[in-house]
Amino acid sequence: MPVLQTLHTISPVMVGIFQRTLKLRAALRHLSPHSTLSSPAAATHSLVSPCSKLLPATSWQFGVCCRKLHTGADRPTPSPAAAPDRLPFSRISQEDLTFFRKILPGRAITDPDLLESNNMDWLKSVKGSSEVLLRPQTTEEVSQILKYCNSRNLAVNPQGGNTGLVGGSVPVYDEIILSTALMNNILTFDSISGILTCQAGCVLENLSLYLEERDYIMPLDLGAKGSCHIGGNVATNAGGLRLLRYGSLHGTVLGLEVVLADGRVLDCLATLRKDNTGYDLKQLFIGSEGTLGIITAVSILCPRKPKSVNVVFLGCETFEQLLKTFQLCRGMLGEILSAFEFLDSECMRLLNTHLKLLNPISECPFYVVIETSGSDPTHDGEKLHNFLEEAMTSSLVTDGTVATEDSKIKALWSMRERVTESLTHEGFTYKYDISLPVERIYQLVTDMREHLGDRAKSVVGYGHVGDGNLHLNVTSPAKDPALLAAIEPFVYEWTARYNGSISAEHGLGLKKRNYIYYSKPSQAVALMGNIKAMLDPKGILNPYKTLPDNLK
Amino acid sequence: MPVLQTLHTISPVMVGIFQRTLKLRAALRHLSPHSTLSSPAAATHSLVSPCSKLLPATSWQFGVCCRKLHTGADRPTPSPAAAPDRLPFSRISQEDLTFFRKILPGRAITDPDLLESNNMDWLKSVKGSSEVLLRPQTTEEVSQILKYCNSRNLAVNPQGGNTGLVGGSVPVYDEIILSTALMNNILTFDSISGILTCQAGCVLENLSLYLEERDYIMPLDLGAKGSCHIGGNVATNAGGLRLLRYGSLHGTVLGLEVVLADGRVLDCLATLRKDNTGYDLKQLFIGSEGTLGIITAVSILCPRKPKSVNVVFLGCETFEQLLKTFQLCRGMLGEILSAFEFLDSECMRLLNTHLKLLNPISECPFYVVIETSGSDPTHDGEKLHNFLEEAMTSSLVTDGTVATEDSKIKALWSMRERVTESLTHEGFTYKYDISLPVERIYQLVTDMREHLGDRAKSVVGYGHVGDGNLHLNVTSPAKDPALLAAIEPFVYEWTARYNGSISAEHGLGLKKRNYIYYSKPSQAVALMGNIKAMLDPKGILNPYKTLPDNLK
Repeated sequence: MPVLQTLHTISPVMVGIFQRTLKLRAALRHLSPHSTLSSPAAATHSLVSPCSKLLPATSWQFGVCCRKLHTGADRPTPSPAAAPDRLPFSRISQEDLTFFRKILPGRAITDPDLLESNNMDWLKSVKGSSEVLLRPQTTEEVSQILKYCNSRNLAVNPQGGNTGLVGGSVPVYDEIILSTALMNNILTFDSISGILTCQAGCVLENLSLYLEERDYIMPLDLGAKGSCHIGGNVATNAGGLRLLRYGSLHGTVLGLEVVLADGRVLDCLATLRKDNTGYDLKQLFIGSEGTLGIITAVSILCPRKPKSVNVVFLGCETFEQLLKTFQLCRGMLGEILSAFEFLDSECMRLLNTHLKLLNPISECPFYVVIETSGSDPTHDGEKLHNFLEEAMTSSLVTDGTVATEDSKIKALWSMRERVTESLTHEGFTYKYDISLPVERIYQLVTDMREHLGDRAKSVVGYGHVGDGNLHLNVTSPAKDPALLAAIEPFVYEWTARYNGSISAEHGLGLKKRNYIYYSKPSQAVALMGNIKAMLDPKGILNPYKTLPDNLK
Repeated sequence: MPVLQTLHTISPVMVGIFQRTLKLRAALRHLSPHSTLSSPAAATHSLVSPCSKLLPATSWQFGVCCRKLHTGADRPTPSPAAAPDRLPFSRISQEDLTFFRKILPGRAITDPDLLESNNMDWLKSVKGSSEVLLRPQTTEEVSQILKYCNSRNLAVNPQGGNTGLVGGSVPVYDEIILSTALMNNILTFDSISGILTCQAGCVLENLSLYLEERDYIMPLDLGAKGSCHIGGNVATNAGGLRLLRYGSLHGTVLGLEVVLADGRVLDCLATLRKDNTGYDLKQLFIGSEGTLGIITAVSILCPRKPKSVNVVFLGCETFEQLLKTFQLCRGMLGEILSAFEFLDSECMRLLNTHLKLLNPISECPFYVVIETSGSDPTHDGEKLHNFLEEAMTSSLVTDGTVATEDSKIKALWSMRERVTESLTHEGFTYKYDISLPVERIYQLVTDMREHLGDRAKSVVGYGHVGDGNLHLNVTSPAKDPALLAAIEPFVYEWTARYNGSISAEHGLGLKKRNYIYYSKPSQAVALMGNIKAMLDPKGILNPYKTLPDNLK
């Protein structure tokens, strides 16, 4: 007989109902004080070891790439994730630096120490060797930079919060880093329509705080919110935790201002919910990873702040039961369901081992985080109660805890949000971000475990059940080419077999670009190449990213 | 003291609450039996007078266009809505017909009687002179047709349900009409994810009925649902009545199959909620009005069918009060609000005069249709009651009626949905579909009334308050170039002054293409031109539409 184990915080309505209908365990455990909310990106910088010298250009690869490390006739075939040879862009000259220092006084950085964290991604898996970091404050400055770089054939790596997971946000060789960090002004907010316009470098969490004071929220939320920039979110079409409820950025972004490769400013910064005057150009830049233009400002539709938020942490015995719980949940929570996330017991072990987070319920093979957001606390409580009662009595879930207070909600959320961070303590992590029909998503984890046997340190699965999005991670003590060869292309072939996407939300960046054909037909990839050639004929914007090395 | 006048059907919970809190009028009026739901397109065909002969090519214009009718040195400047001269496409030959008849046996139509309704838009405002209607059943057939037409330089007019309002769905001269009417198969439906895939020619209402049997609904709904095709909806980025709740097609369309101008089939028919593998090409075709490719199949994310739907019809004394009602409604109905529409008293007069629909409440300057969709009838009823109580006691609304039964809901909705149809009985209607910051939308109607004085028969406003989308219509007994000259460019200049869109949801088609610069900067329009040239270098797809005649 399943029991609801722990009710840390619960509305009075729900307490009464639970007490009447469910057998509660006597002991109320307390959530770990360590389980506070923290962005994975906040942990990034401590992972990057201090280094006062730039690595030479040939040492750009750190994690995924092995091409340059193996020379001679007997070298293994390079991983498709490895970067191609440096393209014939110009190298930066003293005259170039003089120009940049003139238009960006004090904001054209060449100190190698200061450049270190901009050259390396937060996973410590890819390292570039850029010698210049430019920090424009205005769209006009971005325009001047790109106009100049295009005329000089200088490659540019646009960078937001540098929280990307596919090596898309750091230079591969010596590309100039153009950071949006100083473009962090909120431009307008219309409290009637909920439409926010801001510069691209605004940190997501800052925007969230700004909006919450005005009774609104951002339509997206993700673990890296403390560091990631809204421009980077849009450029990578970030998904995150609220997509189930508020949809993708293709629907919520209303306008963009973009600087094209040659410096032209494309003003599509509409603040209208509807506009069918010609082709919707802004859509091209959403998810293009900085390869088609640099987003300098964003207009986005923000939902009202919910008056009532509940978070439930549940345990399930099997993934099938978890899926049935999801179906039940969608039916019974309906319009107030705002997230349905999961992690497996391996994730829980890593959270406990590396971050000292304590499991708030009893041990289970699978854990679920469900969030509701609504406008009436009593109604929401009743809906949640009815759902939980049904889930427990039908034995779909075996244990659970509910939170309605902000701090407890954050603590429960951190069990899901900090999985990525816990993985960084495992040694080296091979990360996969797969989209599949929802009934298939955990089968890939079990198949991968069986396939790898003891070659992997751990194989863990977590992600966004509501979106059919699995984060599959395979760890090993250190980088392990043999393990990599066992994972790839197995994981991609498996995904393609079920018409899945080999990158649900992380993008392709450097690491995944050559796997695009597993998810897209060659006609589509060829058309992407045409669009790139049209918008950036010299290919200066974020080279070696997104598109495959060889267009078929 | 405001009173709630009529409660035709109301849940028991609400009845009790209303009886306790509101002074109800004794008399319960009944909705007109004429106010059944009907699509405007259903009325189309009766508007098209029988004609057994094709009009000559020079008579393509019927409503908006005057260029060919005025010759000589003293002719007035042609309206920017007028079509340019016929472009040098090939004219269809007997060999062409032989080819089409071979690949489409019995489905290459040349009988002028049968072509009549396909040559004219349902507003009776634009008439082409195509001599061939092709009715493919498969993507492969569409591909063969376009490959042939591209090689022969034959222009093609893609046509769905022909319910468009800007002359985009009919030929301008002798373009071959490619109808999706026989491509009406549902391909797959996943009842776990709610993802539907179907051919482009499925009628929206048929899809809705199919889904409702499976406990889902389409994420869009519009007055023309009985005739419009889903492919046409996507090609025009149709908005409609549910956009407020479920967002635009840019967010809900998950995949498209598109045949390009040269016959290549672009397979982006993913059925995944998330897919960040490269540029999101399908977005280009959403809202491109058939000028970049022909959509042959659609995959779309469908919401669960709500368990409870309520519709309220309210009256407001001023537009300011209407806006305050909207704000109150968003706050108090929150996640169950699914539509907030309005019409003015002029619309009500036309509904009454031409369609014999009776006003279900007392006369007011403004009427509002509010719909709620939720998962719990009791909760929804309580939320609605609380909102109505507040709206009435604070004098925001002066009268109202509520419906919860299907037939009554449809009757109330028809007050909003049939305004377009009622306008067709007025003589000639100049139609504008404007997007503005919501607080501005009715100001345009009053300014236009003042500006036109007695030159117009009537100036009416209705539309989607929740989306900031006004449908402004000016009627006259017959086509009236002097009246048109008084309306345009006044309406566009007014809209541009407040950074609005001159086409919120209808698109540009033939009629509005040359006004694009009022809403889009020349850089953006030039880029649209580049995209058109890349995808359709010969320009055979829906020529004279969407893009302006002269790209700046």
